[in-house]
Amino acid sequence: MKKYHIAVVGATGAVGTELLRVLERRRFPVASLRPIGSARSAGKTIRFHDDLITVEELTERSFDKIDMVFFSAGGENSRKWVPIARQAGAIVIDNSSVFRMEPDVPLVIPEINGEDVRKHHGLIANPNCTTAVALMAIYPLHRAFGVRRVFAASYQAVSGSGGRAIEELRHQVELAAQDRQLTPQVYPHPIAFNVLPHVDVFLESGYTKEEMKMQNEGRKIMHLPEFRASVTCVRVPVYRAHSVAVSGEFERKVSVEQAREVLAKAPGLELVDEPQSNRYPMPLNVAGKDNCEVGRVRIDCAFENGLSFWVCGDQLLKGAALNAVQIAELL
Amino acid sequence: MKKYHIAVVGATGAVGTELLRVLERRRFPVASLRPIGSARSAGKTIRFHDDLITVEELTERSFDKIDMVFFSAGGENSRKWVPIARQAGAIVIDNSSVFRMEPDVPLVIPEINGEDVRKHHGLIANPNCTTAVALMAIYPLHRAFGVRRVFAASYQAVSGSGGRAIEELRHQVELAAQDRQLTPQVYPHPIAFNVLPHVDVFLESGYTKEEMKMQNEGRKIMHLPEFRASVTCVRVPVYRAHSVAVSGEFERKVSVEQAREVLAKAPGLELVDEPQSNRYPMPLNVAGKDNCEVGRVRIDCAFENGLSFWVCGDQLLKGAALNAVQIAELL
Repeated sequence: MKKYHIAVVGATGAVGTELLRVLERRRFPVASLRPIGSARSAGKTIRFHDDLITVEELTERSFDKIDMVFFSAGGENSRKWVPIARQAGAIVIDNSSVFRMEPDVPLVIPEINGEDVRKHHGLIANPNCTTAVALMAIYPLHRAFGVRRVFAASYQAVSGSGGRAIEELRHQVELAAQDRQLTPQVYPHPIAFNVLPHVDVFLESGYTKEEMKMQNEGRKIMHLPEFRASVTCVRVPVYRAHSVAVSGEFERKVSVEQAREVLAKAPGLELVDEPQSNRYPMPLNVAGKDNCEVGRVRIDCAFENGLSFWVCGDQLLKGAALNAVQIAELL
Repeated sequence: MKKYHIAVVGATGAVGTELLRVLERRRFPVASLRPIGSARSAGKTIRFHDDLITVEELTERSFDKIDMVFFSAGGENSRKWVPIARQAGAIVIDNSSVFRMEPDVPLVIPEINGEDVRKHHGLIANPNCTTAVALMAIYPLHRAFGVRRVFAASYQAVSGSGGRAIEELRHQVELAAQDRQLTPQVYPHPIAFNVLPHVDVFLESGYTKEEMKMQNEGRKIMHLPEFRASVTCVRVPVYRAHSVAVSGEFERKVSVEQAREVLAKAPGLELVDEPQSNRYPMPLNVAGKDNCEVGRVRIDCAFENGLSFWVCGDQLLKGAALNAVQIAELL
């Protein structure tokens, strides 16, 4: 079996750390691993299987003799360094939003459009985390009923903003217990015991960039140029795993029974839908899980041929690290 | 000026406590106040203006010589005791959901259908808290553009479940800091660092009772029998104030500018909509405020003539105590 020389840019970050664990767990054929971080992280050691490996600083030589690079160090780093990695002959799997909508860059969720990987030119983009979690349920329903448009509202965990956001929530909660307030640093407002209708930057239209990703990336991933998605993205005081409330309108008549059957069979997804026994997806239960969960399936009361449901997924896994490694496996 | 003999059933609860403060603050013409509670609360004293008053237990004689009773002690108590209070000649303002949909019981938000109060037969119902907060923004938009249907997802504070839920969240957060878990009592699952897509009981349809209130109560309050609302209600780890993400479809063409103008002028509502300066409604900011706040106003990208927006309101005030006192003032 061929083994690969792998580099991970952002190896000490929230997604990078998960990525190393996923590579181990799925026994990805790694010939050598090169963890790469910021100047601040360089010199730290990380564990990979039984080895301790020193984190290197990102330089022009970082990609020498590397087969495959995972980028998860923010948009600015991707914009600057992805072209350099491609130039060096490595295949790049990029977690940032920088290249996702470029026509010659496949944007891939393996359970949905794995075959798009073949069209790559040295770069494959990993989708937005909230989009990925929602599409895990929307796509199988689309296959069965033909999706036209969705309304969605998200409940996004702080780990989506990285390790510093996790610390910020933890610290704010501690201080709140003493009736003290912490000056927010990662978010513009306190996140403890609050919710912020603000994820990513605002566009002229009044939507945030994050909110438009479900429509834009959804069209590309599902090969569905007419797909419409009206989304409100909200940060909530949850450490890990995103939740999304979705109402979808379909071309064909839907039934709860058929929808449940379709969702139960969908790859990477588990149906957790026994409301009478208080069983439904929750972020606390999916944190650390590869599979997403869907439940609260019901006939929508405002759409014809409409279905409402609730999806949860660990956005560091399916929304990022797991999906990236699944892409690498397809390669 | 005529003064009224007032009783408050549930005077020591989360809503009852607010109700006493609102009566004081709005200088409601109170001739006498009779606080009524459960057997457990009876004998406690509460403060009203400068008086300390002993809480009485609910009995057949509780409503003697009382002009007006506020009920806020749960559905079971309302079902049993509201008829007794009416029998005794008092006018009842009931905060439970028990009588809201009865045809001869006005269901009133003073800023929307205050005139319906006139049709009362000794009983006026106070609407559901999430519905009240959302309608404060939906109704003025309806007046301007004619609302057809909405999609909404809620972010509901624990104080909506009463004082014990506030304690449960506080305690769970403390234990989580020590990596311990508290067995949930008020909610079926932990609420700290989690979100629960479960408010009120589940119906056969898969919706919860709470989720159907926006459509059912919205139709009655807005006199709009065709109004459709597809709602997902979610409990979040916030102490106070509910938030609702809404996408609405209208009969007439909408513009953000007109919508903002309409919302800015609407009674009981404040427009907080400067996303570029990170100004938008948040539960932490509206907690303790009479007015609801609306922001994130944008042209909806999945509806024709659609508008998306975000409303926050203190559900103990506009969603309960304040609205009840406003109803009493109309009387």
